[in-house]
Amino acid sequence: MSETLRYSREYHPGDTVVEVGNVKIGKGHFAVIAGPCSVETEEQIVAVAKAVKASGADMLRGGAFKPRTSPYDFQGLKGEGLRLLEIAKAETGLPLVSECVSAADLPLFENVDVIQIGARSMQNYELLKAVAQLDKPVLLKRGVVNTLEELLMSAEYILAGGNENVILCERGIRTFDGHTRSTLDLEAVTVLRELTRLPVIVDPSHATGIAKLVPPMAMAATASGCDGLIIEVHNDPAHALCDGAQSLTPEEFDGLMRRVEKIRKIVE
Amino acid sequence: MSETLRYSREYHPGDTVVEVGNVKIGKGHFAVIAGPCSVETEEQIVAVAKAVKASGADMLRGGAFKPRTSPYDFQGLKGEGLRLLEIAKAETGLPLVSECVSAADLPLFENVDVIQIGARSMQNYELLKAVAQLDKPVLLKRGVVNTLEELLMSAEYILAGGNENVILCERGIRTFDGHTRSTLDLEAVTVLRELTRLPVIVDPSHATGIAKLVPPMAMAATASGCDGLIIEVHNDPAHALCDGAQSLTPEEFDGLMRRVEKIRKIVE
Amino acid sequence: MSETLRYSREYHPGDTVVEVGNVKIGKGHFAVIAGPCSVETEEQIVAVAKAVKASGADMLRGGAFKPRTSPYDFQGLKGEGLRLLEIAKAETGLPLVSECVSAADLPLFENVDVIQIGARSMQNYELLKAVAQLDKPVLLKRGVVNTLEELLMSAEYILAGGNENVILCERGIRTFDGHTRSTLDLEAVTVLRELTRLPVIVDPSHATGIAKLVPPMAMAATASGCDGLIIEVHNDPAHALCDGAQSLTPEEFDGLMRRVEKIRKIVE
Amino acid sequence: MSETLRYSREYHPGDTVVEVGNVKIGKGHFAVIAGPCSVETEEQIVAVAKAVKASGADMLRGGAFKPRTSPYDFQGLKGEGLRLLEIAKAETGLPLVSECVSAADLPLFENVDVIQIGARSMQNYELLKAVAQLDKPVLLKRGVVNTLEELLMSAEYILAGGNENVILCERGIRTFDGHTRSTLDLEAVTVLRELTRLPVIVDPSHATGIAKLVPPMAMAATASGCDGLIIEVHNDPAHALCDGAQSLTPEEFDGLMRRVEKIRKIVE
Repeated sequence: MSETLRYSREYHPGDTVVEVGNVKIGKGHFAVIAGPCSVETEEQIVAVAKAVKASGADMLRGGAFKPRTSPYDFQGLKGEGLRLLEIAKAETGLPLVSECVSAADLPLFENVDVIQIGARSMQNYELLKAVAQLDKPVLLKRGVVNTLEELLMSAEYILAGGNENVILCERGIRTFDGHTRSTLDLEAVTVLRELTRLPVIVDPSHATGIAKLVPPMAMAATASGCDGLIIEVHNDPAHALCDGAQSLTPEEFDGLMRRVEKIRKIVE
Repeated sequence: MSETLRYSREYHPGDTVVEVGNVKIGKGHFAVIAGPCSVETEEQIVAVAKAVKASGADMLRGGAFKPRTSPYDFQGLKGEGLRLLEIAKAETGLPLVSECVSAADLPLFENVDVIQIGARSMQNYELLKAVAQLDKPVLLKRGVVNTLEELLMSAEYILAGGNENVILCERGIRTFDGHTRSTLDLEAVTVLRELTRLPVIVDPSHATGIAKLVPPMAMAATASGCDGLIIEVHNDPAHALCDGAQSLTPEEFDGLMRRVEKIRKIVE
Repeated sequence: MSETLRYSREYHPGDTVVEVGNVKIGKGHFAVIAGPCSVETEEQIVAVAKAVKASGADMLRGGAFKPRTSPYDFQGLKGEGLRLLEIAKAETGLPLVSECVSAADLPLFENVDVIQIGARSMQNYELLKAVAQLDKPVLLKRGVVNTLEELLMSAEYILAGGNENVILCERGIRTFDGHTRSTLDLEAVTVLRELTRLPVIVDPSHATGIAKLVPPMAMAATASGCDGLIIEVHNDPAHALCDGAQSLTPEEFDGLMRRVEKIRKIVE
Repeated sequence: MSETLRYSREYHPGDTVVEVGNVKIGKGHFAVIAGPCSVETEEQIVAVAKAVKASGADMLRGGAFKPRTSPYDFQGLKGEGLRLLEIAKAETGLPLVSECVSAADLPLFENVDVIQIGARSMQNYELLKAVAQLDKPVLLKRGVVNTLEELLMSAEYILAGGNENVILCERGIRTFDGHTRSTLDLEAVTVLRELTRLPVIVDPSHATGIAKLVPPMAMAATASGCDGLIIEVHNDPAHALCDGAQSLTPEEFDGLMRRVEKIRKIVE
């Protein structure tokens, strides 16, 4: 290929800073996205939003459209979920991050600040081409079996379409080990730093699938030099409709945030 | 889950036979799908179609919509490619198999006999739900990192939506080995036979990515007891727009077919 | 590296034939090694030896020194096991194949015809250097995570030490799939054919760990063009001290041999 | 299995502390082992030993017996290497850690304080049984493809033989990613904490194989809560006989130690 790839440091020297309202990610700016796996009720999402904001989170995450392995599992509240997220945003001022699984649904995401492309959609090129047309940041998760080049080429689909605001996310790769949902690949953070100018955040919740592992892996990720974290927090994990086993309580999240902040000061 | 899963042998004892015109797959019926990775020209697709028919192929494959890792690679002739496939079908009578990557494109596939869902789309649930509404067979490829349960649950999306005609396809899994594109998992054929009533075919071309490995792996797959093969054949592999390195010439394909037929007689 | 590697086709054009008594492996000579995972009693090993000989097996396998994951599992009859193998050899004339796990034990293997180096010992270089000094063939199994280059470099330790008679064995690699013990990598057979002049056999019993999968994988391996098979056969699998779940009965083995012979004729 | 496994928390509640002279590892005691991949000259090993001691390292590592993939690569100074290590110990007082690859060599290790069992020897059960008889600690590295259960069962061989002093070491697992030598599995640290009472250290040098990745991964490992680190340091990495590409200079190691100490205070 004769042309320089847009994600590379050769194309655009210096780290890219992605801005979401007042929040910045990249080039020394560290951001934490927190919230429940799925939006369930107004009460739930507003309570979690207030709690994570109080602990210092920068953005609110919440799934409305859920890609599920089984057709019989809860698939999310869809449009209604996005409406509840908007209420939480109005109450707290936190920008919203939510996953879109189909280009046809994008009009519903008008008030979502960052469009998340999930691991299973990383090579859904039609969806990538659609978000490339948007004037809002995209959080692109690495697929569980994808190489870093494949991740970067998926980012290239978005950049080539004209959307410069791509945040990469490491969320674990599939290996032979069966103790956790996947193996968090923190080496990827440093390797990506060499290969691309784009910010890289880490999702220890989906990587491990186990709440007990989230704080140590969040701290490890921070120490490895990533640009941010995305963490699942639920006010009642035992009754979560989705992935409760990997959600922190607001109290656990608050304790983690204190330690992440201290590690950040050592890494900077 | 209290309900019996539709893909299972408990739901529907006996092997499922998928019919495509006069062609049957499953329950002792073995079918071979052959053709180029991408449809390129009328001359090319008609020549390949005639050649593979003469060698005994049962259906014609050809990619019109190509999911590619890089946004700068050839993405297929799209609607025009489907039109050329229709010409080849008119000339040979071979039913058509072609990949669809987005539900929005499905209306263009009216004259395609089997809709292929590629490995990268195996968990594109919106696409699965869309093909579940169709009255035509679906060829569902296993993703390179997906477990057999995940493959079967993706099939369940199609079955649950009302489309009973699902053909599963093993096309290699990603491992640490770097000699070939992926590792063909022939154990999956026998394991799937236990887990599901659906027919299982094998794609040695995409699994290996190397023409020289296609005949031995096609023969091995046949000996393992699969219900069919999907093989890339190109009349001029050296100048193919896509995946030429893994395409057989019509002559190589013909020699392979003779040996596959003999192995079939031993397996039956 | 300036010197040509001894395992390569550049070093020694033409396929290597390894001879074990009257049995030949490689360059069109196909051999089947069969027998129980572990030698248990004289009655058992003699009965199995007679049965597999009657079905056409060329050599008898039987483990006397067993590397086991747990220190509390049966570790083999050791020297007594080798003595029982010798009785079976005297009764049937079948050459013996048995695993050695430590150079210190090699003197006990004087009457064993082929020394097996197990998958876990593939990179036990001290053991490789020791068998390199022997005047008898070595059956070198690929480790479950080893690349083909690593396998070949382990063979190189034996060749460089002066022992020309190395048989390579593919026995499955570890992947994310949990249905079987490992994923049999039949592509390796064809790839090794390019990289080395040494014969390559396949072990479907250890690869799959499930008796039901052994016949289809043995047939697939034969169709892929390997130079031989090593298959576990036990006269009473349900009461085997080790790996009974993957052992064929003598009857199952006999039926498999008939089909393997037919496939061999098509492959040649 | 009816008996409680010795590595488990059920067998021996509370974390095990392994003592090496005045150095303690486990139960809140954090230790750093540093030194070159291979011992090369007296000048080299003494210089590195003094440097790492000055930076706060607790023990000196240095390879004398090197298991190498190729028979033509430098295999270590062997007995002479151990003699040079002893000189460095006399000069600095640092306890010694060195790898043994064969039980036959153990008598030469009399003055080595901790016997290292390398990743490729993790399932060399004869070697495990031999070190189980020693009255000195064993550093047991996880094989690149081994599950945590397999690692623990290998530790069990040592514990069952009567040696209570086992330190586990995570050093990366083999995955599909090709950017680094292996993928450091930091989740293993937390999971092992649940499964065993034994201390767990991390080797970021061999895991990554790239010096630039060692500091971030060492910091991440520390943040994940491990009990220590083993890091390669060479006074002249560019001319190292083995693995220079992954060695830190003494200056880089010193900078890393300052940050590791700070992270330790946050984790405790």
